[in-house]
Amino acid sequence: MQNNFTIYNSLTRRKEKFEPLHPPFAGMYVCGPTVYSDTHLGHARPAVTFDLLYRYLMHLGYKVRYVRNITDVGHLENDADEGEDKIEKKARLEHLEPMEVVQMYMNTFHRNMDQLNTLKPSIEPRASGHIIEQQEFIRRIIDNGFAYEVNGSVYFNVEKYSRQYNYGKLSGRVLDELMANTRTLEGQDEKKNPFDFALWKKASPEHIMKWPSGWSEGFPGWHLECSVMSTKYLGEVFDIHGGGMDLLFPHHECEIAQSAAALGHESVRYWVHNNMITINGQKMARSLGNFITLDQLFSGDHPLLDQPYSPMTIRFFILQAHYRSTVDFSNEALKASEKGFQRLMKAVETLGMIKPSDKSTVDIQRLRKSCYEAMDDDMNTPVLLSNLFEGVKIINSVKDGSERISSADLESLTTLFREFIFGILGLREEEDARQDDRLIGNLVKIIIDLRQAAKVNRDFSTSDRIRQDLKDAGVVLNDKKDGADWELEK
Amino acid sequence: MQNNFTIYNSLTRRKEKFEPLHPPFAGMYVCGPTVYSDTHLGHARPAVTFDLLYRYLMHLGYKVRYVRNITDVGHLENDADEGEDKIEKKARLEHLEPMEVVQMYMNTFHRNMDQLNTLKPSIEPRASGHIIEQQEFIRRIIDNGFAYEVNGSVYFNVEKYSRQYNYGKLSGRVLDELMANTRTLEGQDEKKNPFDFALWKKASPEHIMKWPSGWSEGFPGWHLECSVMSTKYLGEVFDIHGGGMDLLFPHHECEIAQSAAALGHESVRYWVHNNMITINGQKMARSLGNFITLDQLFSGDHPLLDQPYSPMTIRFFILQAHYRSTVDFSNEALKASEKGFQRLMKAVETLGMIKPSDKSTVDIQRLRKSCYEAMDDDMNTPVLLSNLFEGVKIINSVKDGSERISSADLESLTTLFREFIFGILGLREEEDARQDDRLIGNLVKIIIDLRQAAKVNRDFSTSDRIRQDLKDAGVVLNDKKDGADWELEK
Repeated sequence: MQNNFTIYNSLTRRKEKFEPLHPPFAGMYVCGPTVYSDTHLGHARPAVTFDLLYRYLMHLGYKVRYVRNITDVGHLENDADEGEDKIEKKARLEHLEPMEVVQMYMNTFHRNMDQLNTLKPSIEPRASGHIIEQQEFIRRIIDNGFAYEVNGSVYFNVEKYSRQYNYGKLSGRVLDELMANTRTLEGQDEKKNPFDFALWKKASPEHIMKWPSGWSEGFPGWHLECSVMSTKYLGEVFDIHGGGMDLLFPHHECEIAQSAAALGHESVRYWVHNNMITINGQKMARSLGNFITLDQLFSGDHPLLDQPYSPMTIRFFILQAHYRSTVDFSNEALKASEKGFQRLMKAVETLGMIKPSDKSTVDIQRLRKSCYEAMDDDMNTPVLLSNLFEGVKIINSVKDGSERISSADLESLTTLFREFIFGILGLREEEDARQDDRLIGNLVKIIIDLRQAAKVNRDFSTSDRIRQDLKDAGVVLNDKKDGADWELEK
Repeated sequence: MQNNFTIYNSLTRRKEKFEPLHPPFAGMYVCGPTVYSDTHLGHARPAVTFDLLYRYLMHLGYKVRYVRNITDVGHLENDADEGEDKIEKKARLEHLEPMEVVQMYMNTFHRNMDQLNTLKPSIEPRASGHIIEQQEFIRRIIDNGFAYEVNGSVYFNVEKYSRQYNYGKLSGRVLDELMANTRTLEGQDEKKNPFDFALWKKASPEHIMKWPSGWSEGFPGWHLECSVMSTKYLGEVFDIHGGGMDLLFPHHECEIAQSAAALGHESVRYWVHNNMITINGQKMARSLGNFITLDQLFSGDHPLLDQPYSPMTIRFFILQAHYRSTVDFSNEALKASEKGFQRLMKAVETLGMIKPSDKSTVDIQRLRKSCYEAMDDDMNTPVLLSNLFEGVKIINSVKDGSERISSADLESLTTLFREFIFGILGLREEEDARQDDRLIGNLVKIIIDLRQAAKVNRDFSTSDRIRQDLKDAGVVLNDKKDGADWELEK
């Protein structure tokens, strides 16, 4: 399987040619959501980024097994293994069984992901569904000497691990500094070092989501599930691990340590991280009041939003930036994306109507090559989109007669647009309903104007007949001084 | 919480007043699909039946926790605990990881359920996600003396259970007859009696979905998950257990035995079973070539189908029969349902347009009472629908002026229709797009007629302006001798 695809590996800190372990197969694991609240902007970016990667790998001919987990237990309120389980806390606040909370927000997540036109993963494993597997993994880490049990909880021994392996290799953090900077939180006395992390936590009596184990009735530490479920479904060594940059430390650093400690080697060959989203230049946070859910974005129902933005506008907006750059959400930027997306879709429509000539005055093969080069260069979607807008120019020039295109080139351009816009970038037409609404509005306006003309001519029989015909069609007119309003009959 | 709702309890074989254990809460567990192939007609009936029950309980004011499982491991090819795991077999045939098979068919199931407008359950637990819980349940059954281990597998001791409890009480089967009629299959030597059933099966070396346990690397028996997950999420005693009548024996009979053996008492207060679907009078079976998936039904793509049938036609069709009657699918019956559904929806439209009078000549309160009586009588949807069609008659009579309705009665009828048709029966309008098309067609026709009149009056500037305005709106006219055709601009 030939390809020129390069991807930035966060571990080696450089772009590398993508060469999967077992071509034509490729394995990809991506960190999914902790399902304790509504899906928000912060979920949209990794979802679109790794959907893009999934689609491009398939486009290149790979058979991809794409695993994305659902965290439904073990994610505590802070990264230092303290605080309540996020899902149990929500369940307590809403008087629900924790798994009802999980189901509710998982449903929302799936609905929003469908709206963004992301493809479903091949497997979507849940942390609570792999407790035995996690216990076995802990057992291996203990057996290899890299974890210790205290009062029914099991912690990963970072300091001991560091004697043999490089803890911090992914994030670039240095253990000595970590040691100096990590403050000991209350109730952390169990840990030998404050930067040790929990593999298994003994549950307090009121804790609901807990399981028996050799150590205690308890639950797995948050980092563990990803080491376990990725290797269960993709093999002990697999190709790609993706996630947001915020997960790089401690989550992914801990994953590397867990896998090396249990298996004697690392599991991941390419670590891929998308950058973060800011809102009007600020970090998104509930406390800053700039936390926007996807449903709010799609409906426009948020004080920061001037208008609704469609799922494809959001997707286009995310794709306009390179996945490793930060992206700042603002109404201005989103409106620009809306326009850009519509221009692209309009060009697709025009493309279907243009007629070929004997010869081309345009170079489609060069365009095609540039599109692949952009994607091959670490998924450079901004460059890809500017290439596609070169295509838009070509289409419009052929349409207005200033350029010509041969039928072979027309076919090639059509294929190129279909494959890149719909197949790889995962955009889709979304305006059927709105287009209908617009057309209905325009037609009614034509009729109202004709009726107005009839009234001016004192042809009241015509103006009355028009009113009645509209009513029969389901449109009610309300005459006003300066014309008429209308509405659809309920 | 007052209600007159009665439901047929398969266990007592009579209709009983529904009185939940902890009002206003009600718990309901329903057997979901084994996700190893496409969703078919056989899934649609329980889905709609228990969606109806869920909706009606909520309508009556109960806070319902609705649990429906996904069987993703342990369901073997035959009920005698032999044969391959259905999912592993499919995975082997399609060269996939078993959990890829699970994900694929679970996605299809969810999509089809959405199309049928069934509400999502509160919790949708998976068998593979509750292995520890199942092992603990087995341990309790063993501790209570009702199960035995042989070669790493654990079987339920039906004969011993029968000395203390009534095995067969749900299905009416008698143990002596079972003993006489059950033939011993090959490889069943491990069982003390052929009607014993597996709680845990030792896995063969090539088996993929297996977990460590005190008995062997293996997997749970199929019946076990439902006893375990229902009581985990609804409590050791809960209100309603639903499923298709084909599950009554052995599946639900075994569930009763497992729960009683583990907990010392039964768990389910109301057993509710929907009857089966036949196709042109025959049982549905792959081997008979009359196996129709929901996607085929919706697309019409099956040799037995004359045309596509919409999800709401299917839903309406299922609701036209009482859930405890058999239903026979045929093109004739489905076409009749399509018409009936459209008549009902048309009446809803008409209802929105009729004008109240001072006094009523129709009796809405009686109608309302009859609708509740029908639902309260073991969810008698055929009677409910005939009552609603009485309402349709009333609507049409008021429309054509032969009856009158007061504004209070009009409001009451509107509420009744909304609550019963959309809320309880879960039907919904399906024709938005088609309605838009009709409206656009009517508006364009009005404009063409006005233009024709202008031409007759030799007012060519108006007729030309109309042509141009239409073109700007995206509608192209093609003049013909006897008027004009039109089409939307591509």
